[in-house]
Amino acid sequence: MRLARRSRWWGWGTDAHAGSLPEPALPLLRDELGVDGAAHGPVALEDVALAEPALGEGLVDRLRAVAGVTTDRTTRIVHAAGKGYVDLVRLRSGRPQDAPDAVVRPGDAAGVLAVLELCAAERIAVVPFGGGTSVVGGLTPTREGFAGVISLDLGGLTGLARLDERSSTATVRAGTQGPELEALLGAEGYTLGHFPQSFEYISIGGAVATRSAGQASTGMGRIDKLVTGLRCATPSGEMDLAPMPGTAAGPDLRELLIGSEGALGVITDATLRIRRAPSAVRYEGWMLPSFAAGAEAFRELVQAGAAPDVARLSDADESRFSMIVSGATAGTKGDVLRRYLGARGIAGGCLMIMGWLDAAEAIGRRRQAAAAAIRRAGGAGLGASAGRSWEKNRYHGPYLRDHLLDRGVMTETLETATTWDNLFRLYDAVGRTLLESLSARGTPPIVWCHISHLYPSGCSLYFTFLAKQERGAEVEQWAAAKHAACRAILAAGGTLTHHHAVGLDHAPFLPEEVGPLGIAALRAVKAELDPAGIMNPGKLLA
Amino acid sequence: MRLARRSRWWGWGTDAHAGSLPEPALPLLRDELGVDGAAHGPVALEDVALAEPALGEGLVDRLRAVAGVTTDRTTRIVHAAGKGYVDLVRLRSGRPQDAPDAVVRPGDAAGVLAVLELCAAERIAVVPFGGGTSVVGGLTPTREGFAGVISLDLGGLTGLARLDERSSTATVRAGTQGPELEALLGAEGYTLGHFPQSFEYISIGGAVATRSAGQASTGMGRIDKLVTGLRCATPSGEMDLAPMPGTAAGPDLRELLIGSEGALGVITDATLRIRRAPSAVRYEGWMLPSFAAGAEAFRELVQAGAAPDVARLSDADESRFSMIVSGATAGTKGDVLRRYLGARGIAGGCLMIMGWLDAAEAIGRRRQAAAAAIRRAGGAGLGASAGRSWEKNRYHGPYLRDHLLDRGVMTETLETATTWDNLFRLYDAVGRTLLESLSARGTPPIVWCHISHLYPSGCSLYFTFLAKQERGAEVEQWAAAKHAACRAILAAGGTLTHHHAVGLDHAPFLPEEVGPLGIAALRAVKAELDPAGIMNPGKLLA
Repeated sequence: MRLARRSRWWGWGTDAHAGSLPEPALPLLRDELGVDGAAHGPVALEDVALAEPALGEGLVDRLRAVAGVTTDRTTRIVHAAGKGYVDLVRLRSGRPQDAPDAVVRPGDAAGVLAVLELCAAERIAVVPFGGGTSVVGGLTPTREGFAGVISLDLGGLTGLARLDERSSTATVRAGTQGPELEALLGAEGYTLGHFPQSFEYISIGGAVATRSAGQASTGMGRIDKLVTGLRCATPSGEMDLAPMPGTAAGPDLRELLIGSEGALGVITDATLRIRRAPSAVRYEGWMLPSFAAGAEAFRELVQAGAAPDVARLSDADESRFSMIVSGATAGTKGDVLRRYLGARGIAGGCLMIMGWLDAAEAIGRRRQAAAAAIRRAGGAGLGASAGRSWEKNRYHGPYLRDHLLDRGVMTETLETATTWDNLFRLYDAVGRTLLESLSARGTPPIVWCHISHLYPSGCSLYFTFLAKQERGAEVEQWAAAKHAACRAILAAGGTLTHHHAVGLDHAPFLPEEVGPLGIAALRAVKAELDPAGIMNPGKLLA
Repeated sequence: MRLARRSRWWGWGTDAHAGSLPEPALPLLRDELGVDGAAHGPVALEDVALAEPALGEGLVDRLRAVAGVTTDRTTRIVHAAGKGYVDLVRLRSGRPQDAPDAVVRPGDAAGVLAVLELCAAERIAVVPFGGGTSVVGGLTPTREGFAGVISLDLGGLTGLARLDERSSTATVRAGTQGPELEALLGAEGYTLGHFPQSFEYISIGGAVATRSAGQASTGMGRIDKLVTGLRCATPSGEMDLAPMPGTAAGPDLRELLIGSEGALGVITDATLRIRRAPSAVRYEGWMLPSFAAGAEAFRELVQAGAAPDVARLSDADESRFSMIVSGATAGTKGDVLRRYLGARGIAGGCLMIMGWLDAAEAIGRRRQAAAAAIRRAGGAGLGASAGRSWEKNRYHGPYLRDHLLDRGVMTETLETATTWDNLFRLYDAVGRTLLESLSARGTPPIVWCHISHLYPSGCSLYFTFLAKQERGAEVEQWAAAKHAACRAILAAGGTLTHHHAVGLDHAPFLPEEVGPLGIAALRAVKAELDPAGIMNPGKLLA
């Protein structure tokens, strides 16, 4: 059986790529969060508490007749959770919420259908597992009311089912992971251009099922804008929606499966728009006098059709941290930088990253137009080296989180989006809520935010918050802040999630966003496609 | 009560704008279709057969308590059908399939909800009526199994509910018609840029409910790509999906209402992306050596992100007709044109229209890139005059149809889309099927086709077919060709409709396109939002 790329059971990625916490971060954590720097590592694998599998050998044998089945301890632990803060807190302490009774790996779409049919008949809950990267509880096994729970690992469905160069699309099997897909497409001169922070481990099926957006999605489009067709296995059979450039044949049912988070079925392949691999790439940094000035410049660019492919703007607090950690503000180099920015009226400032993936000539032209707009907004160029620094660390966030957890720091992110008109109302409301709710518990936090994706009608906001962990009450501490933030987002007109999906964490709040009738419509579809209710219970629909 | 723009009861538009059949078309119809040129005008309004309204005065009074109600003969006839070929054949002969018992005009979204609540309680079928321009039977009253049927006219819900300039969106009430919306937006310097051939009469709610595409949708995007939020009144209450630039909060329920064709509820307003009104417009004509060469050039342009905003390519037969009717091939002018094209290796050829709505400088740059690609494909420029000729006649198709009906010519259009890879398989299959099925009835047809919308992964095909009407069997003649074409489209991997919607005509074929599970999912949603099944019965779901 082909092995998929899987992270360390208690955290992100592999030891070989983990790096270490940047030196300049330590005093910051001590001074601002009161963290003492003591080590809080994960327990040993053999100390993880794990119940015996609930599924009898008879059922396991029947599963084995249609798919690969693994019930060993390590595999079950690796499939016991995603990579959210709560997942990691539980795993590191050796107390995962639960674990699947078995990890089941079908070899193809027919195998997936056979597994679902068997599980529906036997009332076994099914948690689809693609890259294992959910940060919203999308992989938590839920067994209440079921005879058992399996993890349905898509690692057996990989590779390109079809490359249609004339139509500029690729049909990709669901379990194909980010780097594998880019390698397959790259060999033919193409790219999907979908690079979320979790790129190294995501599966394409998971990206489609969670309406993922990547760091270059301002230019390339969210994954939901790239899907032209898909196949989905459900307990009621297969939905096969052929690739279509555009249609008026009723509501677009593709959009009902995109973002369905395994709660309606298992996406087995998706046809996606691809592009010619860019012949050049350029990232560069800018410093803007304020978050508002940078946001306004981005708004103008995207509404003029002149946005860069990668567009990020950190608020003042996130910018300060980034600059300190990168070492850019230290020593003589720091003095030079401060003088350079000061001469341009910028004290502190807000860090902006712009990136282009295109032909060199096109980059030159597009870059010039964008740079002119940013300069008009008072921006000062930091050059390609600041861009390279961002690029080098673009997938490092989850490793950094592991290092912070090692030192007893709660590190969580949440993201939302809204219209340009409503942007600062939402930014202020969420930031203030996170500060107040954590401070009220006696753990004054650091709260950062950046804009990560631009649209003509609005943009996303990505918040990071850090606080000293409340030992023994880590989950309660997190829940208080997270739930307050969800309520603040909804009250301020934002969406619960811009690209992390609903999962377990946001499900109780979804009715307020889509209304009782929206929930009723989704439940009606679920009752049709998954009458036994076995598909990823508790996710999407609470 | 404010009066909406309504067409002549038996045809399109108003007498004042009807023009006449171009002189050069007559010999063509005679020679190729065997049409004798005799007049076959509509019956007089007073000769239209109309049953007495089935709704009792008690119910009409209760409707009148929540909305404007009209039961006069002329209003009922105007609301008795859309503008499809079958609609017009029936109306012109004085035998509409049926007519609504009453035309009900709520004044706002609350009024729509009140009407739906009453109709659900009394089992009265509701046919939403926006601009009245459906060409797929979307407005046919269906009363079987109901106490009666009303036309729900959205003419009372018009204008901008909100113009959000910062977010570049407008919230438009559903009954707002095309020219009215462009006037309202134009006064503030904006445009929606949605210009279907029916532009002069469409309502925005209808455009959203039918997933409409306009002549500039290659550049501006189909209406489904412009919607950021919407409100929909259903018998089970209101769905209010706030404008959002992007979200991962589950399946996008907006996409469940876009294209719902009144069968799930009534869209009462929609928030749409708008753009700065272009400072310049340029249309121009080209002649390509073949349909394949032109299609290939369009494919390259759109995949390179360099497509014009308006992109149309006629096949050889449609091009020949266009050139004859415009007078371009007659006399000395025609000789000059033939010499000009002949010197460039083009005999006959395929007419291409390209258009740009943009700043003058941008048009210059974009035009240059497109022209270079078209020249490489062997295209010869026909200049801006050919573009202006297209522009002048861009909304004239439905008037032309009335003139043809006056002379006993069946005139119908149908449209589909597919991937670039599958384009010629679909083109050949549909064209051959139309030719064969009509010839087999002894009415050899003219069949034309053009590409009307480009996407990176494919394009649309728009077929026009003409034949001598079988007097007394007009609907049977039409149905034989239409149904054969639908089957051919599905067998060749096309979509049943690219922008006309499903309506009554395509509903029996939709299960083959979306599969039994897709239909089951739609039915489940309908049962939830419209438990009594009163919403536009027979449309979308057969």
